[in-house]
Amino acid sequence: MTLRVVGVDPGLTRCGLACVDVETNRRTQLVGVTVIGTTADQPLDERLLRIDQGIEAWLDQYKPDVVAIERVFASTNVSTVMGTAQASGIVIAAAARRRIPVALHTPTEVKAAVTGSGQASKDAVGKMVTKILRLTEVPKPADAADAIALAITHGWRGAAPGSQASASSHSASALTPAQKAWAAAEATARRTRSR
Amino acid sequence: MTLRVVGVDPGLTRCGLACVDVETNRRTQLVGVTVIGTTADQPLDERLLRIDQGIEAWLDQYKPDVVAIERVFASTNVSTVMGTAQASGIVIAAAARRRIPVALHTPTEVKAAVTGSGQASKDAVGKMVTKILRLTEVPKPADAADAIALAITHGWRGAAPGSQASASSHSASALTPAQKAWAAAEATARRTRSR
Repeated sequence: MTLRVVGVDPGLTRCGLACVDVETNRRTQLVGVTVIGTTADQPLDERLLRIDQGIEAWLDQYKPDVVAIERVFASTNVSTVMGTAQASGIVIAAAARRRIPVALHTPTEVKAAVTGSGQASKDAVGKMVTKILRLTEVPKPADAADAIALAITHGWRGAAPGSQASASSHSASALTPAQKAWAAAEATARRTRSR
Repeated sequence: MTLRVVGVDPGLTRCGLACVDVETNRRTQLVGVTVIGTTADQPLDERLLRIDQGIEAWLDQYKPDVVAIERVFASTNVSTVMGTAQASGIVIAAAARRRIPVALHTPTEVKAAVTGSGQASKDAVGKMVTKILRLTEVPKPADAADAIALAITHGWRGAAPGSQASASSHSASALTPAQKAWAAAEATARRTRSR
């Protein structure tokens, strides 16, 4: 049983998109990764439209069970935070239009999940992502690696929509068949591990 | 010749939408006004979807020549700015999907355009909006009045897309027939006034 997660590292200049399949034994497969790029000389509406079209096409192509997005904080970087928030709003709305549950994860959660340390460097995250996915080289740019790390984080948490990290209303009873089966299998695996 | 402007005061809890028709002699007619409301106990994706659906329906119903949105600053109010930016991103993308030009105006510009003072209170803006539109009472809540003020500001500027305030790439040559005619009439009126 596989959970398909799309991870999004939102940004106006570079918006990282990744898709991974996570099995109940946590084995993770990279399905696809890309970065939507726009430049500061483009008008804002064109840049946001590009991101809107990019995420729409991505969700249509990969049909994920859940979308995991980096939680944006106002305090992070004042010069880029507005564009990042605008991009994240567009991504969340695109998922919501398709009734795909959305989960938010902080950068610290992602670093901790992937490397074991919430203080890990971007470099360390990239290296662990490469190892986890059995890739031959580190995904570039960093936004691509970050999107993959987000997707892995969510897949590994097995965070059912409705958990703390969720931005969605979908309760356990509103899970898709794939999600339900995955959650059940995850619970079994958890019991097995704790024996 | 009439320019139809939709004004948007973006916000996660209250997103004000207004539609006004502005004639070349600056006579302005209120066509419609509403506020999309969501509550903090709703999941983020539901709230953003509600705003997405609301602006989509509004643009489909009123088919404006241009959408004027309040420019959001990261320094404004840290606790609400992220939701405001996410909402504004969704509104800009919805306009861009329809190829409707988008213009951004700062709160100071709006206050100055409507009341003559960039330091005007919300109360003063509401009163002037009421007077300009020949209404019998001040539009409530303030988000509704602010959305109307934004639409008036843009309509009165006659800011052709491509001007400094624009977020769009549409150059003068890419104006809709209505916009072209309006810009021409505006130019004539300007010449007339300066005689």
